[in-house]
Amino acid sequence: MEDKQESRLLRELIQREAWEELAEQQEIMHVQDVAAALEELEPTVVLQAMNQFPRERWPAIFAYLNRAEQYSLLQQMDPDDGRFVLAGLLPDDRTALLESVEQEDMEQLMQLLPPADVKQALKQLGYPEESVGRLMNTRFVTIRPDWTVGKAMEHVRTRGESEDTINTLYVTDPTGRLLGTVGLKRLVLSAPTASVEEFISGQLVTVSAAEDREEAVRLIQHYDITALPVTDKTGVLLGVVTVDDVMDVAEQENTEDFHKIGGMGAMGLSLREARPSLLYRKRVGWLVLLVFMNIFGGAGIAYFEATIEAAIALVFFLPLIVDSGGNAGSQSATLMVRALATGDVQMRHWLKLWGKELGVATALGVTMGIAVWGLGLWRGGVEIAMVVSTAMVAVVIVGSMIGMLLPFLLTRMNLDPATASAPLITSIADICGILIYFTIATMVLTLPAV
Amino acid sequence: MEDKQESRLLRELIQREAWEELAEQQEIMHVQDVAAALEELEPTVVLQAMNQFPRERWPAIFAYLNRAEQYSLLQQMDPDDGRFVLAGLLPDDRTALLESVEQEDMEQLMQLLPPADVKQALKQLGYPEESVGRLMNTRFVTIRPDWTVGKAMEHVRTRGESEDTINTLYVTDPTGRLLGTVGLKRLVLSAPTASVEEFISGQLVTVSAAEDREEAVRLIQHYDITALPVTDKTGVLLGVVTVDDVMDVAEQENTEDFHKIGGMGAMGLSLREARPSLLYRKRVGWLVLLVFMNIFGGAGIAYFEATIEAAIALVFFLPLIVDSGGNAGSQSATLMVRALATGDVQMRHWLKLWGKELGVATALGVTMGIAVWGLGLWRGGVEIAMVVSTAMVAVVIVGSMIGMLLPFLLTRMNLDPATASAPLITSIADICGILIYFTIATMVLTLPAV
Repeated sequence: MEDKQESRLLRELIQREAWEELAEQQEIMHVQDVAAALEELEPTVVLQAMNQFPRERWPAIFAYLNRAEQYSLLQQMDPDDGRFVLAGLLPDDRTALLESVEQEDMEQLMQLLPPADVKQALKQLGYPEESVGRLMNTRFVTIRPDWTVGKAMEHVRTRGESEDTINTLYVTDPTGRLLGTVGLKRLVLSAPTASVEEFISGQLVTVSAAEDREEAVRLIQHYDITALPVTDKTGVLLGVVTVDDVMDVAEQENTEDFHKIGGMGAMGLSLREARPSLLYRKRVGWLVLLVFMNIFGGAGIAYFEATIEAAIALVFFLPLIVDSGGNAGSQSATLMVRALATGDVQMRHWLKLWGKELGVATALGVTMGIAVWGLGLWRGGVEIAMVVSTAMVAVVIVGSMIGMLLPFLLTRMNLDPATASAPLITSIADICGILIYFTIATMVLTLPAV
Repeated sequence: MEDKQESRLLRELIQREAWEELAEQQEIMHVQDVAAALEELEPTVVLQAMNQFPRERWPAIFAYLNRAEQYSLLQQMDPDDGRFVLAGLLPDDRTALLESVEQEDMEQLMQLLPPADVKQALKQLGYPEESVGRLMNTRFVTIRPDWTVGKAMEHVRTRGESEDTINTLYVTDPTGRLLGTVGLKRLVLSAPTASVEEFISGQLVTVSAAEDREEAVRLIQHYDITALPVTDKTGVLLGVVTVDDVMDVAEQENTEDFHKIGGMGAMGLSLREARPSLLYRKRVGWLVLLVFMNIFGGAGIAYFEATIEAAIALVFFLPLIVDSGGNAGSQSATLMVRALATGDVQMRHWLKLWGKELGVATALGVTMGIAVWGLGLWRGGVEIAMVVSTAMVAVVIVGSMIGMLLPFLLTRMNLDPATASAPLITSIADICGILIYFTIATMVLTLPAV
């Protein structure tokens, strides 16, 4: 847990304004921990703390601050320092900062960049949001297939110093088309006179810059690689997506799935930073929709008004019956949505899984029916017990089936399966539960329906 | 999407039993795609397909099959081939296979291993389940601080061929204590006469072998590193956890969180492979517990029997009221559980977030109250409308507060916050919803409670 300790130590030094002590300790501190400690502090204090670190570490620390903090810090900084920090960022981090601010602030930041970097940033911002093009790092080392290993190593030595990703080298033809990759490791292990060509792997994995960034996550996970080359339509190498970027994206995408299945709009932002108005907007949709779906549920109950009046004890079990369907349905929806997201389950598996789910749901329903039998007997007598437990079996099975099939149906319609959220399934299960429960009650108790 | 195409092509070749064609194409196929294509096939067919690939690729293909398939394939294989495949696996993959099978099968597999590998496997299996020790790779290249860069590179050349992870080299003293790490890149970029010592980073991140593997995930994500050294209590280097292992673990842990919040026991297994009896056991717990929690909800309704008899229209809105509390609660619980899991939110933030949640929940409650007002007016008149909308505001606020605070409370009690599942919150919200709704109804309609 060293990072938490380090952040706490640093935060304490800052609070005590022990600047000298901080300057002494700075060498052993990781930039990630420094950035974590600077979170939630005023930009002026952040600036004062940054001043205790040698200037060449600023870009690295800056890169780990969150976007909003980066922007407000740049505004506090001397323009020269700002230029220095921005120039020291990796292109992908710079692009991420630029895309996070408003249009006019972006133009202001662009003025701190040299023309070449502006051009690169504009090009990267030209790719769609959440695309691979926005995520990729545009600095990489290329070598030619006809070079010797010795020449390639020499090239790496002269070009590699400033580059982040030289564990993999990219072999291109003179027009920039990617021919293959060679691991630095492979070159190190080879004779200097050997030709680069010999080591090019025929199994090249690439991704297009216009592709959704989730595809980059999938490819890197599937192929267990640490860097994924990005190409244009003609195969020209444009950049590289690295595994650390992909881990961040995977975490964000997982968070979005959590939010969706919890019945909210997906929210990329930090919960701590999200404004209440945003949270309201992300949550209100499903909630209000469910009110309107209740028009049907309420109508169902109204239809069975006579049944209810004749046996008011039925109402005791109404919340339990409708909730059990919703709960069983949420369980199976969660299982399916997650299995579809990880690729464990694909469309073609649906029938086999449906059979399995039917078996499991029946077993669950019967268990629940038995559990609720006692409750029914105690509160309403034998007939009520029969109604409640039969309804329970049916409701759990129906709820599970809905929860299982809805994610497949959504996938089939090219919608996100995670839309099959707990609240949506709760509402559908409600309507089904009400109808099943009171229909069985009307039949068993031989009461008038209307 | 090249991988899916490749898998499909391969599967088609296998179905047609076009072995020659397969042997011709094998060179351009990735082992990951081959393994994916071999999924769900009979072991004898898998074996036949494997035979089309050169023997030296077998261990790599084998490593990407799932554990159950690995085991049944080994049983079909010639013992010599089995020995060859097992010897070619990375130690961590071998340990993962051994820990996935029954005790007696494990002993049988061990007989295929040379004594050194058995010793290593037993040592790794001695670490607790889900610990870093089980996850780590025990092959790595160490160098000494007093060596020159030239000597270190020479050592890498002789030792590196068989090792997976030489992008980072580990500097140890003669007793094996880890002094620091040096990137292969750094050595390549340096003069051969320089001393290794100069390049050791003072900012060493390590993890203990006994630590939970989630800690390894967190450290690798936090520090943006691709390999994390694992040490014992005295600082001796035991192994290395690599980023690809960590991505798999992160995915599993996320899946477990999904399952927990969906109201199930966490399940590491693939949904496709999970047996119905396991699914039943993982799901039945929460469902039945909720039946017993309904004893309180049912008692609440029974207490207000007279109110219900006097105004049966109240029943129309009962499912809506209790569900809305549950839905709003699930939303805030999902937000909190996820934010706590990613580290976005920590315990110390609870009060600030509570204030924000109260604001958002009030706004949501009022919106819902207005939405339901119309429904109430239509189905029950002015008084019912008033009861329903007031109860709605209260229920949404109470549900949200429970959903928000429960994960913090569970964290405080050192329990997993993801236990605050949708079904649990639904049940608690039920009881609160029933009491709030009928209490308000009894007051507004001035009806007798008992």
